Amino acid sequence: MESWPPGGSGPAEAGRRPRGLRGADLAASASLLSGAGAEAGCSAPAVAAVLPAGGSGERMGVPTPKQFCPILERPLISYTLQALERVSWIKDIVVAVTGENMEAMKCIIQRYQHKGISLVESGVTRHRSIFNGLKALAEDQPNCRLSKPEVVIIHDAVRPFVEEDVLLKVVTAAKEHGAAGAIRPLVSTVISPSVDGCLDHSLERARHRASEMPQAFLFDVIYEAYQQCSDYDLEFGTECLHLALKYCHIKAKLIEGSPDLWKVTYKRDLYAAESIIKERISQQICVVMDTKEDEEHVGHRLEEMLKNELNHVKVTSGRDIQQIILEQCYNFVCVNVMTSDFEETQKLLNMLEESNLSILYPVVVISVQFLDYESVPFGQKMENLMQIREFAKEVKKRNILLYGLLVYYPQDEQKLQESLRQGATIIAALIKERNSGLVGQLLVA
Amino acid sequence: MESWPPGGSGPAEAGRRPRGLRGADLAASASLLSGAGAEAGCSAPAVAAVLPAGGSGERMGVPTPKQFCPILERPLISYTLQALERVSWIKDIVVAVTGENMEAMKCIIQRYQHKGISLVESGVTRHRSIFNGLKALAEDQPNCRLSKPEVVIIHDAVRPFVEEDVLLKVVTAAKEHGAAGAIRPLVSTVISPSVDGCLDHSLERARHRASEMPQAFLFDVIYEAYQQCSDYDLEFGTECLHLALKYCHIKAKLIEGSPDLWKVTYKRDLYAAESIIKERISQQICVVMDTKEDEEHVGHRLEEMLKNELNHVKVTSGRDIQQIILEQCYNFVCVNVMTSDFEETQKLLNMLEESNLSILYPVVVISVQFLDYESVPFGQKMENLMQIREFAKEVKKRNILLYGLLVYYPQDEQKLQESLRQGATIIAALIKERNSGLVGQLLVA
Repeated sequence: MESWPPGGSGPAEAGRRPRGLRGADLAASASLLSGAGAEAGCSAPAVAAVLPAGGSGERMGVPTPKQFCPILERPLISYTLQALERVSWIKDIVVAVTGENMEAMKCIIQRYQHKGISLVESGVTRHRSIFNGLKALAEDQPNCRLSKPEVVIIHDAVRPFVEEDVLLKVVTAAKEHGAAGAIRPLVSTVISPSVDGCLDHSLERARHRASEMPQAFLFDVIYEAYQQCSDYDLEFGTECLHLALKYCHIKAKLIEGSPDLWKVTYKRDLYAAESIIKERISQQICVVMDTKEDEEHVGHRLEEMLKNELNHVKVTSGRDIQQIILEQCYNFVCVNVMTSDFEETQKLLNMLEESNLSILYPVVVISVQFLDYESVPFGQKMENLMQIREFAKEVKKRNILLYGLLVYYPQDEQKLQESLRQGATIIAALIKERNSGLVGQLLVA
Repeated sequence: MESWPPGGSGPAEAGRRPRGLRGADLAASASLLSGAGAEAGCSAPAVAAVLPAGGSGERMGVPTPKQFCPILERPLISYTLQALERVSWIKDIVVAVTGENMEAMKCIIQRYQHKGISLVESGVTRHRSIFNGLKALAEDQPNCRLSKPEVVIIHDAVRPFVEEDVLLKVVTAAKEHGAAGAIRPLVSTVISPSVDGCLDHSLERARHRASEMPQAFLFDVIYEAYQQCSDYDLEFGTECLHLALKYCHIKAKLIEGSPDLWKVTYKRDLYAAESIIKERISQQICVVMDTKEDEEHVGHRLEEMLKNELNHVKVTSGRDIQQIILEQCYNFVCVNVMTSDFEETQKLLNMLEESNLSILYPVVVISVQFLDYESVPFGQKMENLMQIREFAKEVKKRNILLYGLLVYYPQDEQKLQESLRQGATIIAALIKERNSGLVGQLLVA
């Protein structure tokens, strides 16, 4: 069990902390946290999170509620859970889902190996769902592993990109002020219509903000507010900060959040989320070579070309593949210089299959072979290499996307340069798109 | 010259009206329009549009102003111009750009063949840019082809998905009320902070709306408002409807807009816009066959498979390719049953090159060959087919993305079914992603 107060996110945990802040960055702000349970190593859970996820997603215009819409074949809510559970000092996460989706939610938790999640039934409105989550935390029942936290975070299931730093900021501010919430500048001017559908007045944009998530509260404050509040509030209200103000006279501290906090609301937001996730997992490529000798050979030259052409991507040599897998690299280029079979690629695939790396994201593996047209009959070589299709079919079941790449290796230096460049372009395209429809293809540079 | 009032968007014009409403739908609302210049065939331009495009795009976090960010290699503002110029009854479009971007804007207009665009220099704020646009329309100078419109639309350069119906609605309402603007429900609750950064109060979400674009005004109303308004308004204001209310006592009519009206503000919005555009141009696939005989042959079976597998996509036979090009189909599958060369593909490529279809969007062409492994040496066939790389390189210069697809044609019925299905999957993947890094590749199903 982790200690409280948080001193950072600790060492990276496989599949769990791909984008957390570094410990040192957080330690500074974490020292602001004080109060009950602040003794080092105290086992009392101080912070819990409640996630209302009972919405129907009617604005999305699709039948699936938006929190269950797939992004790279994984439901959106799983990304949000991943973002919260990688924060070591959040002890419990309570998710409120409809009875109808309870089983589906259990499957998601099991399949993506989420930890520390409790499920409660949602209410018919957002406020009622949150209230149900708070009740589960408040009730100190003998058979329940949940216990009342000091601070509770309220977040949305459809804001998957929340970072540890903003969570820490709202929690720290909630401890001091009783309540806190993330805000963003308004993108559009807000207006007030009159009853006849005409403009009554417009609000000055600079004086207003959009209230976003996450928010955090002293548990006793927000639980009191929900217990006191009217049926009208529970039915039509949209703002937890408002309840804390109205019923507990707590003026929430407002924290400027990053643009990443935006809420997946429309279909276009799903597109945006998919592109952002693809971009994030494409930042590192590990090049695995079947030889460690001769820095001048064509495999190293391809690696150099990748570094030059993809200068926004970190290209690393795969000396210690186990370590690189632990660091959550999702892209591998397996360069076969000495051999023209798939032995090295298969070794890599075996390691990946054993690692569970591909549970959360599809992993791209590109097996590269070189070919001198003049010394080997081109067609015959390709025919041999077509067996990659069978391997690809097999590993796709485990979310590994395998492609083949044949790089032309002519004697002419300029032509070689050109085919290496094209090879780098193809590798970049495959990693960027992560297209499962093209697995098993043998591409030619 | 088109007549006023608008009776619909007229016949489709190549490259110009891919998603306009049908004439009949519009005629109904158009009949609401009346007033000056309403005689059929009257040559006076009644409606113009002003597009402020002087922004620096600081929220995007990229050096290029967002209106010039490329989507499928074409600047965002060109999509917005395309959306406005396909509306026949908008006579003039005035774009306000910084002196610095004036030349770049001229190049965009020339390269993408935009018509009826005038450029003015932008001001340092949005309101000043709009005012400059209005001045250009108001001044009846002898050498200027612009003349004062009855109604002026104000739109944003970064809202590329505006449809003709909402433009017509705001123009119609502006004629009646003097001013009108599109609105949307609020996605987040709006709050008002106090000076110490805490919550002062929150606004009831249901009673407020986000003010979006387009807006429309009787020209005399909005021009008067801009002439009257204070420097403070010009410097810090964000809302044209507010100026009409404050200086001309005009209460704008508010029109519920669709989610498509959203403003490209952050990097994620560029991702979303790109995905939406890719989706829109992937709705139709034209299958061109090198034979018209024998409905039972494998080419027709591939076409049937495409129809079954891609049931959201319209798959048409390319009987009259010229007509299909005119209708803006951006995806072609060239099926070679009788021959195993690229003659048919080249014919198609020539027609596409002559048509200018690929000026606005990249056109995908997939050349399909069938192969019976048992009767032809596989390697040799592939070797012949590799010449597709040279064609692909050539046509890519004209924004045509050419790929090859080899479909395995075994005697076994079940296996054939499987390779046709895989062929359809690959075709769908290539069309959906429109990846220029993979052009010239020969894929195998």
